[in-house]
Amino acid sequence: MNYPANWKRRHLLGLEDISADEIITILDVAEHFRDVLEKPGRKEPLLAGKTCANLFFENSTRTKTSFGLAARRLGADVIDFSAATSSLAKGETIIDTAKNIEAMGIDAAIVRHSCPGSPKLLAEKLRCCVLNAGDGPHEHPTQALLDIMTIRRRFNKVAGLTITLVGDIAHSRTARSNIWGLRKLGANVILCGPSTLVSRDWEKLGIEVAYSLDSVLGRTDVFNLLRIQFERQVIRPFPSTREYSHLYGMDITRLAHCKKDVLILAPGPINRGLEVTPEVADGTQSAILEQVTNGVAIRMAALWLCLEQK
Amino acid sequence: MNYPANWKRRHLLGLEDISADEIITILDVAEHFRDVLEKPGRKEPLLAGKTCANLFFENSTRTKTSFGLAARRLGADVIDFSAATSSLAKGETIIDTAKNIEAMGIDAAIVRHSCPGSPKLLAEKLRCCVLNAGDGPHEHPTQALLDIMTIRRRFNKVAGLTITLVGDIAHSRTARSNIWGLRKLGANVILCGPSTLVSRDWEKLGIEVAYSLDSVLGRTDVFNLLRIQFERQVIRPFPSTREYSHLYGMDITRLAHCKKDVLILAPGPINRGLEVTPEVADGTQSAILEQVTNGVAIRMAALWLCLEQK
Amino acid sequence: MNYPANWKRRHLLGLEDISADEIITILDVAEHFRDVLEKPGRKEPLLAGKTCANLFFENSTRTKTSFGLAARRLGADVIDFSAATSSLAKGETIIDTAKNIEAMGIDAAIVRHSCPGSPKLLAEKLRCCVLNAGDGPHEHPTQALLDIMTIRRRFNKVAGLTITLVGDIAHSRTARSNIWGLRKLGANVILCGPSTLVSRDWEKLGIEVAYSLDSVLGRTDVFNLLRIQFERQVIRPFPSTREYSHLYGMDITRLAHCKKDVLILAPGPINRGLEVTPEVADGTQSAILEQVTNGVAIRMAALWLCLEQK
Repeated sequence: MNYPANWKRRHLLGLEDISADEIITILDVAEHFRDVLEKPGRKEPLLAGKTCANLFFENSTRTKTSFGLAARRLGADVIDFSAATSSLAKGETIIDTAKNIEAMGIDAAIVRHSCPGSPKLLAEKLRCCVLNAGDGPHEHPTQALLDIMTIRRRFNKVAGLTITLVGDIAHSRTARSNIWGLRKLGANVILCGPSTLVSRDWEKLGIEVAYSLDSVLGRTDVFNLLRIQFERQVIRPFPSTREYSHLYGMDITRLAHCKKDVLILAPGPINRGLEVTPEVADGTQSAILEQVTNGVAIRMAALWLCLEQK
Repeated sequence: MNYPANWKRRHLLGLEDISADEIITILDVAEHFRDVLEKPGRKEPLLAGKTCANLFFENSTRTKTSFGLAARRLGADVIDFSAATSSLAKGETIIDTAKNIEAMGIDAAIVRHSCPGSPKLLAEKLRCCVLNAGDGPHEHPTQALLDIMTIRRRFNKVAGLTITLVGDIAHSRTARSNIWGLRKLGANVILCGPSTLVSRDWEKLGIEVAYSLDSVLGRTDVFNLLRIQFERQVIRPFPSTREYSHLYGMDITRLAHCKKDVLILAPGPINRGLEVTPEVADGTQSAILEQVTNGVAIRMAALWLCLEQK
Repeated sequence: MNYPANWKRRHLLGLEDISADEIITILDVAEHFRDVLEKPGRKEPLLAGKTCANLFFENSTRTKTSFGLAARRLGADVIDFSAATSSLAKGETIIDTAKNIEAMGIDAAIVRHSCPGSPKLLAEKLRCCVLNAGDGPHEHPTQALLDIMTIRRRFNKVAGLTITLVGDIAHSRTARSNIWGLRKLGANVILCGPSTLVSRDWEKLGIEVAYSLDSVLGRTDVFNLLRIQFERQVIRPFPSTREYSHLYGMDITRLAHCKKDVLILAPGPINRGLEVTPEVADGTQSAILEQVTNGVAIRMAALWLCLEQK
């Protein structure tokens, strides 16, 4: 596979500061790796001899596992570093911790941290590649890229589609990365949820804000049903989960009012019966598990592009 | 090595629903891998390119490590998923969690869960192979198979032997899997322990129940000394550990009343001085560490048989 | 690479019982692996087919990661065993736990435990190699070896140099291993810290004890700034961290009174502003990150020497 000439980055920190061309490059490379994943063995050892470190200062299972598998499918070694058993408890700074891991001989640091901007900070301080695996409510670029990849595979395009992000926009790094990425590729983005979770400020960027899900059903091509992140909320932003699902849950009745080829995405882990009913989550319009598979391909692409950059 | 013609399963869920012929097939294949483990390198990469996931919803060190090593000895990749850091805490169902891991490109899920039947449920819902690594008090087939393998290696047979399972039959998945497996192979099984831990109901299946260990010493070929699982018991089923060891602990005095070639097994981790005294656990009749080594061979056999099934 | 004729050990338990020649052998072998780590791929698969187990009964991230990477750079498999999820909670002895892991087919056990002497105990009871990764306040040989390697690389010698260990000598296994190792190689060791952390008893061994850091600045070639291990101390051994850093912290003012080519080491994780100020830690005299890199090389050397011993 030829290394794409337009890729010049050693870090993937977010989709806000990246061009449409670069996003398309990642998607195209990911399509190649998606094919690799379908073949026996599922490997292409382009990164043999490289070592990637999962530096997860916040708990995660699926993103860490997905990055770890992506690195191994490329032949790289992976070391897992989790905050719970780490030196951070001993008073060390995140930069010292990361520099220490790097000094052991690391080529890429995959960073999740509750503090927005921490991957950028580490990218400035370390010599190795840094990939953002989620920094607080700021960005989660590989999640958005896998969402966009899933959309592009279904519709063979992104431009001109209307994508509605439903739910907890305020706390969602996935939402933010999706907004930047989708708009760069020419999609029309609608943000939908209760006013406590969706700010009118987004309208200043020319993004439509809708407080009624029913009002956008018929003109949406893709629904991305964000998780209600109870663990991030101090004050409950809606009266009850029952009311939330009544107003914003995707169920079979609402689906009947959607376009025939509507695509249902959810970044997971899903709260069944809250953002989406089981009938919809497991139905033919849903691509929830395809998203997971595409996620490994996106992460292979991101790792290879950043690590092979000289 | 030739794939055995009589093996048709993609899952290993328990020994209750499996035939004597199939059990013998696993044991025979495991003997082959036992030889591989004695050779330098200890590997036979029959599963190169495959990925196994340890899906442990209950804590475990030794079973998880044993399965992980078995997979790696066969050249497979292994990913570890533990419940403590998982999405389950975020309200996801076990099926969604497993389907997500599977969608990342998993060929086999090795499942431990506190709920009986959960591996069977996952086998119905997933496309990948499922191996039961312990489901509550229900079954723990690879533990029973490694016990039976250790017996067969010592006596060159299983049929006709008398095996006494001692202790906490009520809470023990190991006991249940041993009962099904041993009886299918023609062994005579005795269940021995306090009446609070050994139900008379087993007699309905034609299994002997003994409340006195001393009464069966002279006619038992193999003692399998089950762990008192304090962590599973709500009510203490006997007055004191001192009384338990007095009545059911295997010590040097009791050993003197056993057959000369008696075999002492214990699934571990053992409570020294409770189920078994150090002199017996470390003595020549004991095969406790052989069991551990055989466990890796059994798990290699189970993984290879299930994963190579088309 | 030729196996050194003077190495006869299968275990590395500490530096107190090892000869100067053996220490030099480890350092020389480590220099070879240091070169390997600079090359693309960073691997020399001398231990392919071997399996190392990290048996960490105390939490650790960096030492465990460093040993794990060292083993993988040599082509060995690594299994991680941590006490938190282990059978120890079920009442098993450390020897039974270790023997069980060994019976799964382990060639080396890398042991960290809070109890002094536990690696030695395991070395007597197991057939596999045992490497001490820190046993309470007793020894931490690979940490001292990487400190000494860093010193030797900077000065091209160790004999005749004056090395001052600053801080918490009483609780520090790193200090003890450094004292044994440095003195065997002919260095002059000074122990410096508050009297609550540095005993006058060391003077009986002919080691200088200094309670004033300022008094030794001008005649020290290497400062090794030990961590104040708050987590090991029951009673606070000094009135405040402010007073400690005032009396024993290495800052830019003190550095100005040091020799021009003074070397600053710290085993980390460092408490910035306590033992050392950021200006000094990140300055040209500091070799804190070199220590980390050398640590991987030292552990590769220790693993290869012990595991290849027949």
